[in-house]
Amino acid sequence: MKLNQRGLLIVISGPSGVGKGTVREALFEMEGHDLVYSTSMTTRPPREGEIDGKDYYFVSKEEFLERIKNDQFLEYAEFVGNYYGTPKDKIDAQLEQGKEVVLEIEVQGALQVREKVKDAVFIFIAPPNKEALFRRLLRRGTEDPETIDSRMKKAEREFPLAHKYDYIVVNDEVMNAADRIIAIIRAEHAKTERAIYKYREMLEVD
Amino acid sequence: MKLNQRGLLIVISGPSGVGKGTVREALFEMEGHDLVYSTSMTTRPPREGEIDGKDYYFVSKEEFLERIKNDQFLEYAEFVGNYYGTPKDKIDAQLEQGKEVVLEIEVQGALQVREKVKDAVFIFIAPPNKEALFRRLLRRGTEDPETIDSRMKKAEREFPLAHKYDYIVVNDEVMNAADRIIAIIRAEHAKTERAIYKYREMLEVD
Repeated sequence: MKLNQRGLLIVISGPSGVGKGTVREALFEMEGHDLVYSTSMTTRPPREGEIDGKDYYFVSKEEFLERIKNDQFLEYAEFVGNYYGTPKDKIDAQLEQGKEVVLEIEVQGALQVREKVKDAVFIFIAPPNKEALFRRLLRRGTEDPETIDSRMKKAEREFPLAHKYDYIVVNDEVMNAADRIIAIIRAEHAKTERAIYKYREMLEVD
Repeated sequence: MKLNQRGLLIVISGPSGVGKGTVREALFEMEGHDLVYSTSMTTRPPREGEIDGKDYYFVSKEEFLERIKNDQFLEYAEFVGNYYGTPKDKIDAQLEQGKEVVLEIEVQGALQVREKVKDAVFIFIAPPNKEALFRRLLRRGTEDPETIDSRMKKAEREFPLAHKYDYIVVNDEVMNAADRIIAIIRAEHAKTERAIYKYREMLEVD
């Protein structure tokens, strides 16, 4: 399989509470793309309305630890007693098939992927300002005060890590943010380092 | 003036006959951008319908040579007896004002700009195939056989230079090509190296 036919791995990440999940959902609702979502696995209990296998694969801590031992994750992270991870198995096959695979993961996990997958595209979702993010964390209301406090502290620590990403997309308005991600994906495909293979093929076909 | 407020210099270029001008026109007809076109200067006679100051500044060879002597061009090139160049004067002021300045220039000139303006964005417009380009050159019909032949040979020499650009945009359909350029501009603004200043400002404002 030639380099140019391999799909893009797109990593959407950002501080806790920035609305990564909402942006990712909006992205998948948009037309004119061919994206595949890689569902994460977690040991945290489902929030109301979350569906197993769609929002997350919800598993027990025992099962998660077993999978870590068997090196079944592309990345994983632990946060306030819960594990979050990206199962390896399907991703590589999907990329080989030329599909665009989207991960929506924590900052800690994204930095692990950065080390492993050199040609992935890393997008940091940023809040329009700090207040918006803290308001969001408070409003979520599904978590106890300590969890909220932990998330706020985590977000503070994650703010400066934006510079490790390829792109910063401000989540001022969800559809705008999703739209910018679509633009980034299109631009990435037009990048010379990716497009040159196809281009050369075209010239040789003559 | 801060780095983040400076506008982008966008260089649209590509082989002779690829339809750079048509793509550039389509780009400017699109909505939702804030682009400024930097009109080139040439010593070649206007083609039918071309307007002085809009399509090109049409000047005499003497005037052009005088301007070269006075270092008034960002780039210039000579081709089949005619000169083409980008007047320096306005561009820098427009970039300082935060405007996005678009140049539509020959490959030879684009490579000169590449040397001088490190953070410009270079887009190579490619034909969907060689035949399309040659057909286009023949159909233009405003030039004598020798000129057409020179242009074809020039295009052949320019094909391999695509790898010196940041992006390759295939001109399969003019509106598609223009649309891809808009996506590239949006993505370039979201690039961490550009967006980080604004992002840091946002965090400090707090």
